[in-house]
Amino acid sequence: MKALPCFETALPAGFLAAGVCAGIKKSGKKDLALFYSERPCTVSAMFTTNRIQAAPIAVCREHLERGSIRSIVANSGNANCMNGPQGFKDARAMTRSVAEVLSLVPQEVLVSSTGVIGKSLPIKKITDSIPDLVASLSPRGLPRAAEAILTTDTFSKIICRRVKAGNSSVTISGVAKGAGMIAPHMKTATMLAYIFTDASVSRAALDSLTKDAVCDSFNAITVDGCMSTNDTVIVMANGASGAPLYRNFSDGKGRIFAKASREIFLGLAKMIVSDAEGATKSIEIRVRGAASAPEAERLAFSVANSTLFKCAMFGSDPNWGRIAAALGAVLSSIQEEKLDISLNGRVFFQKGVPRRVEGKAFLEKKDVFVDINLHQGKGERRVYTCDLSYDYVKINADYS
Amino acid sequence: MKALPCFETALPAGFLAAGVCAGIKKSGKKDLALFYSERPCTVSAMFTTNRIQAAPIAVCREHLERGSIRSIVANSGNANCMNGPQGFKDARAMTRSVAEVLSLVPQEVLVSSTGVIGKSLPIKKITDSIPDLVASLSPRGLPRAAEAILTTDTFSKIICRRVKAGNSSVTISGVAKGAGMIAPHMKTATMLAYIFTDASVSRAALDSLTKDAVCDSFNAITVDGCMSTNDTVIVMANGASGAPLYRNFSDGKGRIFAKASREIFLGLAKMIVSDAEGATKSIEIRVRGAASAPEAERLAFSVANSTLFKCAMFGSDPNWGRIAAALGAVLSSIQEEKLDISLNGRVFFQKGVPRRVEGKAFLEKKDVFVDINLHQGKGERRVYTCDLSYDYVKINADYS
Repeated sequence: MKALPCFETALPAGFLAAGVCAGIKKSGKKDLALFYSERPCTVSAMFTTNRIQAAPIAVCREHLERGSIRSIVANSGNANCMNGPQGFKDARAMTRSVAEVLSLVPQEVLVSSTGVIGKSLPIKKITDSIPDLVASLSPRGLPRAAEAILTTDTFSKIICRRVKAGNSSVTISGVAKGAGMIAPHMKTATMLAYIFTDASVSRAALDSLTKDAVCDSFNAITVDGCMSTNDTVIVMANGASGAPLYRNFSDGKGRIFAKASREIFLGLAKMIVSDAEGATKSIEIRVRGAASAPEAERLAFSVANSTLFKCAMFGSDPNWGRIAAALGAVLSSIQEEKLDISLNGRVFFQKGVPRRVEGKAFLEKKDVFVDINLHQGKGERRVYTCDLSYDYVKINADYS
Repeated sequence: MKALPCFETALPAGFLAAGVCAGIKKSGKKDLALFYSERPCTVSAMFTTNRIQAAPIAVCREHLERGSIRSIVANSGNANCMNGPQGFKDARAMTRSVAEVLSLVPQEVLVSSTGVIGKSLPIKKITDSIPDLVASLSPRGLPRAAEAILTTDTFSKIICRRVKAGNSSVTISGVAKGAGMIAPHMKTATMLAYIFTDASVSRAALDSLTKDAVCDSFNAITVDGCMSTNDTVIVMANGASGAPLYRNFSDGKGRIFAKASREIFLGLAKMIVSDAEGATKSIEIRVRGAASAPEAERLAFSVANSTLFKCAMFGSDPNWGRIAAALGAVLSSIQEEKLDISLNGRVFFQKGVPRRVEGKAFLEKKDVFVDINLHQGKGERRVYTCDLSYDYVKINADYS
């Protein structure tokens, strides 16, 4: 049942990628990425639920209505958000420009932007770079494309898995970026994630897999509770492996594929949290015993977004009262006399009574696990976050 | 219509206060305060809406049911929250101890605690100090009491006003503490505020004044969006001025009294924000033109609690896109093409189009005013917050 070994930055069969410097970023780093499938794809996509949505999101929604997607063009260094009618023109110009060089129609191209809000895209620089970008498309281009979508990220985020599918095997590769403005509910953040597979998957099965996997991964992370205007997850399956079509994931082979896919979603989400702006710790929060799963989610995110709790974790200070205060801030079935709270296996509060725990060495590590049990029902939710450090403030005090 | 001059830390007639060191704080600073009225009072009180409430809050609620309150005892350095049954015993012991020395019944004494959660109160130190505390009660004791309720505050918060009431005058004095764990909705924070007046006010009028004034003051501030377990506002009117009873505030004299009272509530709330942990700027956010007042409030607080926005303000970075992202995170009537956003009078976004604003000198000052107009309806809300600095992280990374 284990995933087969796989070159860690490989693309699935029939996919090409590229990343170049178009001059959007002042730093001169790569800032324009392209992904391309040589064959028609089944596509699923999810976007931010923010009421303010960037122009590229609106253009993606239009193009997805046609349903036949072959390529994604993405820039970093500028979010192309709140740029008025010009923003929509520029987003369309990006897809048109890619379509021309690749001999596609513009509606076969999706577009993403990430970076600062409210500044015009240097659209001429971008369209001028597109012929070079297309010319450098390669089956080995994933690392360059991954680099070109980064903003305040400190490392590229790529995960690949290969799994057996009958006599053949299929590959799933995911790439993501995100380090700040990360909050739940796609509602995630300035988070871009693209997942490619050479499996053949029905649209219904791909949609359902994407929705479930996003719930437990990108919608389970928060860096700062700040919802972005540009979040995008796109999943493309092109069938180039020749393996039989997945119509669902209920049999053994389907389960292996779905499990590997979910590992990629969750793995990328955790990479985003571990690369969060200024983060020194990765924190997993599990709320159990809530009256319902949505209640467990509200409670878990209230803790995950508490700046006081996050500062305490930065200082390895087991100030569990801040967890309690954050839990109590949510309207829920919580009763103090039934509540258990533990941190990295140390029980601090049990059924209404505080326990004396000495020292803080058990918190002075990279990973923190917060376990909360309300003992009220069966609602459970697991979310992932990070601490709040000096560097988060530093990074965000002078960004634009 | 102006308030009469008034010694700035005076108590109204018939009130005494004291503050001593009981040894709760390791620093050796004052940590036990007492307020006492020589006459029976009309009392209004509001408490945190957190589902987890500290023991003293529960004891206050019990005592307020009797309705006749003469004294408040408050300690800093320990929140007496989540201490199990012992916490309730200790809170009651504080009121009993004060009542004995002052010849009251325990139900005439209210109690507050502020500080770290989940550590037992050093109750013997406290009860042993109460005779001294009572002995030092004085009409000039307000500054000492104000000092004794501070935690991470850097200054005492006292405001006094004297207003005419027919042939006599009445005094209103307010004292507050709070610097972190400050969020809206009484739902405010580890925020304690006590307001005393020698006016004679009916219970109904005092309740209504308190509720309205809290809405526009303590419920309009946020430091970190973290709701406390201990928030308390207590208003006591003892009638010692001899001025006629206020049954409402609809006539000229009533309006003057109500206005002066509201100024004290708002003044104390703004002092809390200006003393917020690590804050370098005071930020006022006005949302206008929302579909309703509650919608305007949700939008204003979404901006006020955005850590990205607060970091940008710390850096005097006019990154207004973060305001837009925070507004969009709320389900509301917002439409990008009708939205206006300005910062200290500079218009950054108007009716769907970004405006070019050069420089950032206009943000490099202590006060920031954010004006947001949705042009959708008549809903309006004004809230107050501060920036997020390195020092907030420092203060909160090692608190307990």
